[in-house]
Amino acid sequence: MIDIRPILFVIGILLTTLAAFMFLPALVDAAQGHPDWRVFLSAAFFTLFIGVSLVLMNRGGPVRLNIRQTFLLTTLAWVVMAAFAALPFVFADIELDYGDAFFEAMSGLTTTGSTVIVGLDDAPPGILLWRALLQWQGGIGIIVMAIAVLPMLGIGGMALFRTESSDQSEKVLPRAAQMSAVIGLIYLALSLAAAVAYWLAGMTFFEAVCHAMTTIATAGFSTSDASLGHFASPAIEWIATVFMIIGGLPFVLYFQLVRGNGELLWRDSQTRAFLALVLIMVGVMTGWLWLANDTALEIAVRHAAFNTVSVITGTGYASTDYNSWGGFAVTLLLFVMVVGGCTGSTTGGIKMFRFQVICAIVPVQIRRLLLPHGIFVAHYNRKPIPDAAADSVMSFFFLFALIFVAVAVALAGFGLDFMTSVSGALTALANVGPGLGDVIGPAGNFASLPDGAKWLLAAAMLLGRLELFTVLVLFTPRFWRG
Amino acid sequence: MIDIRPILFVIGILLTTLAAFMFLPALVDAAQGHPDWRVFLSAAFFTLFIGVSLVLMNRGGPVRLNIRQTFLLTTLAWVVMAAFAALPFVFADIELDYGDAFFEAMSGLTTTGSTVIVGLDDAPPGILLWRALLQWQGGIGIIVMAIAVLPMLGIGGMALFRTESSDQSEKVLPRAAQMSAVIGLIYLALSLAAAVAYWLAGMTFFEAVCHAMTTIATAGFSTSDASLGHFASPAIEWIATVFMIIGGLPFVLYFQLVRGNGELLWRDSQTRAFLALVLIMVGVMTGWLWLANDTALEIAVRHAAFNTVSVITGTGYASTDYNSWGGFAVTLLLFVMVVGGCTGSTTGGIKMFRFQVICAIVPVQIRRLLLPHGIFVAHYNRKPIPDAAADSVMSFFFLFALIFVAVAVALAGFGLDFMTSVSGALTALANVGPGLGDVIGPAGNFASLPDGAKWLLAAAMLLGRLELFTVLVLFTPRFWRG
Repeated sequence: MIDIRPILFVIGILLTTLAAFMFLPALVDAAQGHPDWRVFLSAAFFTLFIGVSLVLMNRGGPVRLNIRQTFLLTTLAWVVMAAFAALPFVFADIELDYGDAFFEAMSGLTTTGSTVIVGLDDAPPGILLWRALLQWQGGIGIIVMAIAVLPMLGIGGMALFRTESSDQSEKVLPRAAQMSAVIGLIYLALSLAAAVAYWLAGMTFFEAVCHAMTTIATAGFSTSDASLGHFASPAIEWIATVFMIIGGLPFVLYFQLVRGNGELLWRDSQTRAFLALVLIMVGVMTGWLWLANDTALEIAVRHAAFNTVSVITGTGYASTDYNSWGGFAVTLLLFVMVVGGCTGSTTGGIKMFRFQVICAIVPVQIRRLLLPHGIFVAHYNRKPIPDAAADSVMSFFFLFALIFVAVAVALAGFGLDFMTSVSGALTALANVGPGLGDVIGPAGNFASLPDGAKWLLAAAMLLGRLELFTVLVLFTPRFWRG
Repeated sequence: MIDIRPILFVIGILLTTLAAFMFLPALVDAAQGHPDWRVFLSAAFFTLFIGVSLVLMNRGGPVRLNIRQTFLLTTLAWVVMAAFAALPFVFADIELDYGDAFFEAMSGLTTTGSTVIVGLDDAPPGILLWRALLQWQGGIGIIVMAIAVLPMLGIGGMALFRTESSDQSEKVLPRAAQMSAVIGLIYLALSLAAAVAYWLAGMTFFEAVCHAMTTIATAGFSTSDASLGHFASPAIEWIATVFMIIGGLPFVLYFQLVRGNGELLWRDSQTRAFLALVLIMVGVMTGWLWLANDTALEIAVRHAAFNTVSVITGTGYASTDYNSWGGFAVTLLLFVMVVGGCTGSTTGGIKMFRFQVICAIVPVQIRRLLLPHGIFVAHYNRKPIPDAAADSVMSFFFLFALIFVAVAVALAGFGLDFMTSVSGALTALANVGPGLGDVIGPAGNFASLPDGAKWLLAAAMLLGRLELFTVLVLFTPRFWRG
């Protein structure tokens, strides 16, 4: 049996934090005189009550979690957080049913950014702030998880990053908690910088804060149905582009940057590969818009940069309906969706380093074909890739494909068309946000999907966010046998 | 430098064989009084001349090929064969341009079955027979290659089959050449059986022979634009279904069956997995057609069985436009395309055994997450999977996905729509035949695609047929450095 007391203890702490955040939209709605403030206040106290109760009832247990407890905690924490975060959506003026509310909360916390809410432009400020706050919490949550939890669990090749955080000049590894605190401050500072930039570029203070939170978390909720296209401002689009890229890089390297080890950031092969990919994709898309679609060059560059970066980083903002850019653009964007940014960032998807690992392994395979008895070693970031990590990365890739197929087929089974099924499965698993096609594309919305499809997509978001294995391991008999 | 004399010697033999086959359509056209007989006769003599010249000029060289020569021979042989096989299409009455003719020939030899010819029902018999003969030769070619060449080269985990052919009761491995001869006879016998069955079910003698050849090769060329739907005969559809399944099983096990070791066939885990997959998919599709599409049960079973088996085995016949079966069916069929049948059969695609290997590896990965220091070994067909084979299979899978994406994006770049690009890339790489959507779907045709797209698809067919690595290895500098 698994001792779940320490798990409930940690979940209690997390719920208490969630409750603290719920007071903010209550304040904003109260200040604006919108009756939703009562809903947020009630939800906050209820969540606080449950959270504090869990802490009090389960304190005094063992402090160190074993591997199985950590797996269970990780999945359970995200599900429970989403379950409570959904409450305001149910009882506030917009009155979502619980399925929709859970979808929206899960989409927020996993920094996916798919929404079922139509009419954001007229929505009360509390709801808009709550959506942004969920994504902001989700963003820092995923960074901390990628630094402190996943490498320990060895998920999908994350073991490669076990010593990544070690400073070359020091013998002692900075403790994960301490590092997480510093990275939290960096995250806050970057969010503030984004907010100021947005505000200077013409957003209201409220819009600037909301968008700053969902930009740095590469998450994608907006305060308008038209997403960032609403502002029709090149400056705002470029600011978003820059901060989405910042959000797509490994935060642990910002930590090193702050400590004066900036060269680690520039020398990091994942950072370089990610920036190179962004550059190439933006270049290709610009060329397509300019030459094939006859868009003026300045507009082509801006639209290509903003929307491509938005899709690669899994943010999911749109400045225009890229669905209408033609088959080439749509096909390319669909595949770019799955790539994602760097591990240790707020992005979703398969992640850059996994592609790098596999792209290092395949040439080795080819060399082995020519010299069956030769010894060839694949490298990542100037270090040899251990066999276990290579297997783990490749299994991740296969599993991603398999789950994608299963989700896409299941969505089609709910009666959705081919494009909606395929892009819906991808956008959820890669935590992007909008899909492609008319229904869930950048100009569409997830509200019209059947309930079953929404629950399935919420599950896919969680699976993708927790790097598949973390969740799947719970479904093995061996996990529960102990 | 690579000594290409033995390569040219073998290609000479293959061209001589091809020329011999060209005399058959010449005979048939002559018998029917169609002027195309002169074209086939000229092409036959020209090919015979080149083939015999190559043999005569390059005989007396070393008999054993080294690994690099084998790689070069394999790719070169298929390209050269397609180049010569295309000649009748260019000069016959139908007058294809060379690009279209090469596409048709490559589609034939790789047993893909995509066609650019419209108006098959009125086409002269020589052309129809030539298309069937190409697929029939391609089918036996791929079986022999999978038995004799690929395991030696260790392509994509094929090393697992290096000893597969060894009889349990004997010490000596039957020689590949001897085994190939016996399997050739089995292939011929199965083709004859299919022809007789088709003929008894109502096809003309000519139709029966042509379809028998393209059924057993799971290849898919028909004598009618409406494919097997033309005959509107349940009996013919069921015969096709049975023989497509037979074509999807490992032929080396038929060899064992003939030698009295039938239990090897039934105990083979790839055979079992393939049959189970077919059963499940046909069941699911029947349910969908029956319950969601309100088709009568008898028709639902038959349509589901025939068309699903046609897609899984990569045959590519159609008895109806399954494009209109709705999103669920289309999405499922698209993914089923890539699976393919068993290795050592005439089918294309990723192949059953690769899925089995990966499905054995993933649970091991999950177990390792729980017990990081435990030793777990994945098994295939009751034997442990060597690390090299596992890596090789996973690399194959990744490479398939990568090339699929590249081809799909490139097709979209030629201006094709999303569905055509995606399904076109898949159908070519997996050697299926028709794609999905209105353009290249079961009711469509590849004739309308731009020339560049056709060359790209022909290249994709070759890549898929030769298990990717065989071709790609030629593009590495190391290959040519020696």
